[in-house]
Amino acid sequence: MTIPPILFTDLYQLTMMQGYFLYGLHQQEAVFDLYYRRNPFQGGYAVWAGLDVALNYLEGLKFSETDLAYLKSLGQFRPEFLDALRGWRFTCKVTAFPEGSAVFPSEPLLSVQGPLWEAQLVETALLNVLNFQTLIATKAARCVTAAQGGEHKGTIVEFGARRAQGPDGALGAARASVVGGARGTSNVEAAQRYGLPVTGTHAHAWVESFASELDAFRAYAEMFPDSSTLLLDTFDTLESGLPNALTVARELREKGHELQGVRLDSGDLAYLSARVRQALDEAGFPDVKIVASNDLSEFVIESVIREGGRIDVYGIGTQLATGGGDGGGALGGVYKLVSLGGTDKMKLTGDPSKSSIPGVKRVFRATDPEGQTVWDVVAHEADHSPLPGERVSDPSNPLRSARINPDLVWHDARQVVMDLGLRTQPRETLAEVQARAAHELAHLPSGTLRLLNPHIYRVSLSRPLQEHRDALVSELRERHGL
Amino acid sequence: MTIPPILFTDLYQLTMMQGYFLYGLHQQEAVFDLYYRRNPFQGGYAVWAGLDVALNYLEGLKFSETDLAYLKSLGQFRPEFLDALRGWRFTCKVTAFPEGSAVFPSEPLLSVQGPLWEAQLVETALLNVLNFQTLIATKAARCVTAAQGGEHKGTIVEFGARRAQGPDGALGAARASVVGGARGTSNVEAAQRYGLPVTGTHAHAWVESFASELDAFRAYAEMFPDSSTLLLDTFDTLESGLPNALTVARELREKGHELQGVRLDSGDLAYLSARVRQALDEAGFPDVKIVASNDLSEFVIESVIREGGRIDVYGIGTQLATGGGDGGGALGGVYKLVSLGGTDKMKLTGDPSKSSIPGVKRVFRATDPEGQTVWDVVAHEADHSPLPGERVSDPSNPLRSARINPDLVWHDARQVVMDLGLRTQPRETLAEVQARAAHELAHLPSGTLRLLNPHIYRVSLSRPLQEHRDALVSELRERHGL
Repeated sequence: MTIPPILFTDLYQLTMMQGYFLYGLHQQEAVFDLYYRRNPFQGGYAVWAGLDVALNYLEGLKFSETDLAYLKSLGQFRPEFLDALRGWRFTCKVTAFPEGSAVFPSEPLLSVQGPLWEAQLVETALLNVLNFQTLIATKAARCVTAAQGGEHKGTIVEFGARRAQGPDGALGAARASVVGGARGTSNVEAAQRYGLPVTGTHAHAWVESFASELDAFRAYAEMFPDSSTLLLDTFDTLESGLPNALTVARELREKGHELQGVRLDSGDLAYLSARVRQALDEAGFPDVKIVASNDLSEFVIESVIREGGRIDVYGIGTQLATGGGDGGGALGGVYKLVSLGGTDKMKLTGDPSKSSIPGVKRVFRATDPEGQTVWDVVAHEADHSPLPGERVSDPSNPLRSARINPDLVWHDARQVVMDLGLRTQPRETLAEVQARAAHELAHLPSGTLRLLNPHIYRVSLSRPLQEHRDALVSELRERHGL
Repeated sequence: MTIPPILFTDLYQLTMMQGYFLYGLHQQEAVFDLYYRRNPFQGGYAVWAGLDVALNYLEGLKFSETDLAYLKSLGQFRPEFLDALRGWRFTCKVTAFPEGSAVFPSEPLLSVQGPLWEAQLVETALLNVLNFQTLIATKAARCVTAAQGGEHKGTIVEFGARRAQGPDGALGAARASVVGGARGTSNVEAAQRYGLPVTGTHAHAWVESFASELDAFRAYAEMFPDSSTLLLDTFDTLESGLPNALTVARELREKGHELQGVRLDSGDLAYLSARVRQALDEAGFPDVKIVASNDLSEFVIESVIREGGRIDVYGIGTQLATGGGDGGGALGGVYKLVSLGGTDKMKLTGDPSKSSIPGVKRVFRATDPEGQTVWDVVAHEADHSPLPGERVSDPSNPLRSARINPDLVWHDARQVVMDLGLRTQPRETLAEVQARAAHELAHLPSGTLRLLNPHIYRVSLSRPLQEHRDALVSELRERHGL
């Protein structure tokens, strides 16, 4: 996935930077929080992804002479400002959840702390990378949940290159899919770039290039005697593709090889996979895998499994590469100023659930005696971890509060990932990030992974933070006569 | 927008290429058609976009030694095949609608004709680029239609960088938005790359960085005395933002300058824009523009206008950058083998509307005496243009036919854009492509641009092509015993 260039930003970030600079505000210490307000896909969580890409972006930020010449050509920027950009570097501190964490609405997922004109510039690119990666990683995790949800468990692979949003959108989707649990991709470039398993079989065009389906299957199996997956539906899955595949499976076995798999790409996947499984088993080929593609989503997978499907590998295209469908396509993450020059800031809105949470914060996460992750509390930076019996509030409804129960163990859910513009944590492999995501999801309360109407994971505000927020709201309303 | 590298392809394209090579089929002349089956967004057309990017991709295709080493490392490719890839070039002929054309389901939008192993490899990247660009250009055109649909006409600009699918997704979306009629982008990198107008104002953080909203407005206006657009909703649009903006507008005028605009970013945009317009007009500022943002789509714009909104510029984010919403996110374009070694090919499916149209084809487009574009006929390459009185068929329902009426003028809607792998047409600027799209949409039958339940533009198959397709279906069914 491309690292955004420094001019990958909205124009207003640069006009504001110039303003901060001209009015001497640019070095004020600012804190921005990046968070989202609603879980994607009407689910119960998101898988936080893209952090490594975001840190690569922040590490390399620098205006080239070409960049400055372009900005000059726009006629809006003063020479003294452009001169100052020449030495501009990103020197902020960044605090974030580790990549692959399970995260929830309203929590600051990433905070940028440092000079105002640095923290301002990076908003657009950070949101772009983290919104997209988190969206797709979450989609992948949901598909994995569906594929693992029945007695017959399947894995997922990413097949969406042809429907993704541009070539780099496809590469980014492959990356994020792996964070969320995909086992590979069909995209050769993505596999090379990220060191992923690459997977694929043949298309209908292959079958059409031979005199018969059987000839085409034989030719493919001769070329890949140990790794052929045959596509069954060019003419008719059960009447033509299946018997021809069985013929080839027997011929391979006679020569000491085994057919690897068959692929279904149309029709009723539950019915067809059950029939194909039965035929393969009866013919003595219980190890031949069934791969399915064709407009899959977590909901299609769930229904296929509910209806007795026997699919081993789900190749997921459009929906995985783009987020697809209702409410897909974008995660609505935002990046809001929460502190400036030591003063806490917040934006008022008519809807309290959309108001930001002011101040420099930390996020505590609780584990219960069974090892489950059960509760997040957003607190002031200086707050202690939640104590048994303390009251905490619902961030979207201050009238609702809860009491911290005993026997929870609290830890900081975020860590400093960058200081003075330099990474403070070793880089992780995608495999490590994938393992973290799998571990985190496996330890959420039952029901949080449900695809629709999930259990709502508890995120609270500490009482001092809640009171501070209330006071700030009153002060702002008064000051602006609202 | 990134040009896909040569390994940006599904693995199976490469395994099939090896197969064609090993079995001596690779040099057979193949023809693939790229088309889609349903208009995006439940609309009545698509704006064909991305052709220039696609041709850039095809022109530069070459396997590097690094690519070959990676393929070798996968353990599936034979040395003789990898050697052959060393000299591999794309030498096909490509026929396509000019970029910016209005296009419709079932028509071959682009056809690739040449050696099978060349035409096969490029499927994934061509679909990726053309699906995405066409999707977003169509979305932009729909937003323009909505914005121009009332008495008070507005323009659209692309504001979606932070929600797009990766950095390059954002750049590609900015490009396609312009093809569809957007007047600019907020994305500085996109503006630089494509030579687009770049637009922007300030964010809430700017207001929060000053002691008061009025101070913040004054500071911004002092910096940009002739190009300030002030964001009104940091505290309250009508109670705070509007009066402060009027104060600054008067102060600017005293110094010989004019406020350029105000921006609305929340609330009821119809009501607020009408109130703000009235207040600006009454205060003597009829030329101050009203810009609106906040989750816009063609449907939101249409409703804002219907309810009396007075918005001059719509800044459209998520929905424009991703296609967004129901049925958005991806155009389902496909790429199907229609001829091989001189024999016409087609893929059978249960649903006749999903069956491909065999053979090498041309597309005739008719203009009526009023200059309207009214009818497309897909014919055999060798067919003459439709004659008055001839019967033509509905491609998705062979039982429906129509008679060609007189006084239509027919022309070839597609042109050869590449021959022997080299461009045959001069490159066009985005402005030229944008102008073509605007012209084409303006000449479609009334109702074709309607956002929902549009007039269905007529696309037919010539009678000889229809009969040929029917014969091929019968032959295939017989051959495979179906």
